[in-house]
Amino acid sequence: MTDRRARYKECLALYNEYKERGLSISMARGKPNGEQLKLSNGLLSVLAGEGCVAADGTDCRNYGGTDGLPEMRRLFAEIMAVNEKNVIVGGNSSLGMMYDCIADMRGIWPKNAVFICPVPGYDRHHNICEHFGIQMVTVNMTHEGPDMDAVEALAVSDASVVGMWCVPVFSNPQGYIYSDETVRRLACLKTAAKEKFRLFWDNAYCVHHFRGNPPAPVNFLKKCADAGNEDMPIIFTSFSKISFAGAGVAALAASEKNLEQIRKRLFVQTVGPDKLNQLRHAKYFKDIEGINAHMRKHAEIIRPKFELAHFILDENLRGKGVARWHCPDGGYFMSLNTLQGRAKRTVRLCAEAGIEFTAAGSTYPYKNDPNDANIRIAPTYPTLSELSDAMRIFCLAVEVAALES
Amino acid sequence: MTDRRARYKECLALYNEYKERGLSISMARGKPNGEQLKLSNGLLSVLAGEGCVAADGTDCRNYGGTDGLPEMRRLFAEIMAVNEKNVIVGGNSSLGMMYDCIADMRGIWPKNAVFICPVPGYDRHHNICEHFGIQMVTVNMTHEGPDMDAVEALAVSDASVVGMWCVPVFSNPQGYIYSDETVRRLACLKTAAKEKFRLFWDNAYCVHHFRGNPPAPVNFLKKCADAGNEDMPIIFTSFSKISFAGAGVAALAASEKNLEQIRKRLFVQTVGPDKLNQLRHAKYFKDIEGINAHMRKHAEIIRPKFELAHFILDENLRGKGVARWHCPDGGYFMSLNTLQGRAKRTVRLCAEAGIEFTAAGSTYPYKNDPNDANIRIAPTYPTLSELSDAMRIFCLAVEVAALES
Repeated sequence: MTDRRARYKECLALYNEYKERGLSISMARGKPNGEQLKLSNGLLSVLAGEGCVAADGTDCRNYGGTDGLPEMRRLFAEIMAVNEKNVIVGGNSSLGMMYDCIADMRGIWPKNAVFICPVPGYDRHHNICEHFGIQMVTVNMTHEGPDMDAVEALAVSDASVVGMWCVPVFSNPQGYIYSDETVRRLACLKTAAKEKFRLFWDNAYCVHHFRGNPPAPVNFLKKCADAGNEDMPIIFTSFSKISFAGAGVAALAASEKNLEQIRKRLFVQTVGPDKLNQLRHAKYFKDIEGINAHMRKHAEIIRPKFELAHFILDENLRGKGVARWHCPDGGYFMSLNTLQGRAKRTVRLCAEAGIEFTAAGSTYPYKNDPNDANIRIAPTYPTLSELSDAMRIFCLAVEVAALES
Repeated sequence: MTDRRARYKECLALYNEYKERGLSISMARGKPNGEQLKLSNGLLSVLAGEGCVAADGTDCRNYGGTDGLPEMRRLFAEIMAVNEKNVIVGGNSSLGMMYDCIADMRGIWPKNAVFICPVPGYDRHHNICEHFGIQMVTVNMTHEGPDMDAVEALAVSDASVVGMWCVPVFSNPQGYIYSDETVRRLACLKTAAKEKFRLFWDNAYCVHHFRGNPPAPVNFLKKCADAGNEDMPIIFTSFSKISFAGAGVAALAASEKNLEQIRKRLFVQTVGPDKLNQLRHAKYFKDIEGINAHMRKHAEIIRPKFELAHFILDENLRGKGVARWHCPDGGYFMSLNTLQGRAKRTVRLCAEAGIEFTAAGSTYPYKNDPNDANIRIAPTYPTLSELSDAMRIFCLAVEVAALES
């Protein structure tokens, strides 16, 4: 019996032991856990105490307003490092705002519109493109962000390339931060589609570092404007992973020209956003210092989970040549690559042992990972003890799947 | 000097007296006033006391769910008189849900799509059609609802006629209730566009009667299904004029087939609605009895305003042959027709005396009232004393404008 054969039998035996325990743990979606949610419970009563009148005298219980409350525009301007006049504050969903902006643009984009998608990436971004029949071409992610040579070559050569998805800080799923040079090259991007090209800059995790120094804020609107690309970027962020997931407040930032277009649609689409929820957030978090203090509390809860997951990966897989991974300093995800063709098998092995991961392939457009290698790990929702079990089973599954091949 | 000339001078003198008082009163939008908003202040703290867990155990502070909370689907089912399985509960805006449903349909509608618009009607309905380049043809409203002979003739003869706006209960702006016969004929509508035809049934005021008996609830989905038009209607309503304007909860009801289409889009568009605001409403209002009890309090505040407005119209304009109007038993608006070509002038005279009305014409598609006669009156927002001044000035303006002609 070869060493490899023996190790396979050993892994399988350990895996089967776990399997018999009948566990049921979800590592699938980036959901905050109960301890994190509790941090924001003060939001639930802040208006009962402080009333419903905004700083400018607006009664937030009544109709009116398209741009959002001034205090929330200010707060989001601080979060996104832009000027508050460039901010529109919306409802609970930044994804909904992205969806609407793409729907708006479809009238002026060609039928064969194409988006550049750094891979692996965020499945819900890809879903929007697929829904609207927008083709997706992939570029690889590096530790510095998207492969900029590939991005530039695509954008400059083809007028049907009209957009690109970016998660510049703690990218989903790897947790990479785009380097200064990547950000500079994106801001200066030359595109054949010219004024029709839009960078969808999803800054979902801009204040979500959990160890080390916070990433330096970048006014990406200004960087683009300085490079003559004022109308290229639309920036998005939300409170979903600051306050309550799905019951936060979302916002976008864009050039005055883009905002005018968006306001025209908003005026038709709705009588206005939920200003009470905006006011709740403004009164509770107050300013960027309030946000940062709050995020430090999230970090205390999240950091041990990422570190535990990292530790278990290190302990069980390092040096075996069966996987590569990165442990980020912020965000909600980790990304691991198995050997080629082993991701689906790994996820299935986990599922059979009661550990749910996001389906292999879902970090790629059309849910098709050509290498069948990438798996997204979401360590925030389980307890530390669940996470420990889940990651040990995951490591065994990675190794079993590798040894099977 | 003729009697007419003398009366004109007299009206003008009275009008000028008011004008000198430098009033500033808005009669423009159907906004609840502060006293009404206060009725729902309990919403602001209900979750602090009762927690964030829905009846099915869902933690509403976290992601998940497309259809809305079961208890809110149930409550909306009672409000809309439909089965709860036909309900999807959304965010704060029923207008936004209508906008999205129309956006969804545009892919299957012809380029020259046409909507039937009962006139006078709701400006924001017309704005959505205009935004999407959907042509609008008008049919007249009667006390029984839209002129059904005209509706049937349009719908059956032309496959490009793909939709119709309806506000069946306390129509905006007249406050008419569609008669049983009108509802029956709409449910049985034969359309050339067949499965592509949609009735947008905006039941915004279904629980908003303020005197007399409540309108009998009608399960319009069932009526349509019984007539073989199961997929024709989409029903909308919201809490905006029950709880807080713009910070309520909206919902739609439709056939299973329509819901499947809508869910497909919702899954792409958003991670889910704001379930905390749904839970707030479910816990605060509980059931249809809770809603009705709450609406009786609204009625106590609103009824005197409508009655005062009616009284002043009666006292000042009855029998003079310069205007026709209707005083409704519910809803948020009254509608008045001046002599032909006199609405714009009337509204301008009011504006010059500090009384803001919705622009004349805005109750018609493209803001074009061919008779320049219709004015929408929104009596809810001002105080009784403001309303009294505003209506007296309005009556003088109607008469002055008539006598000028």
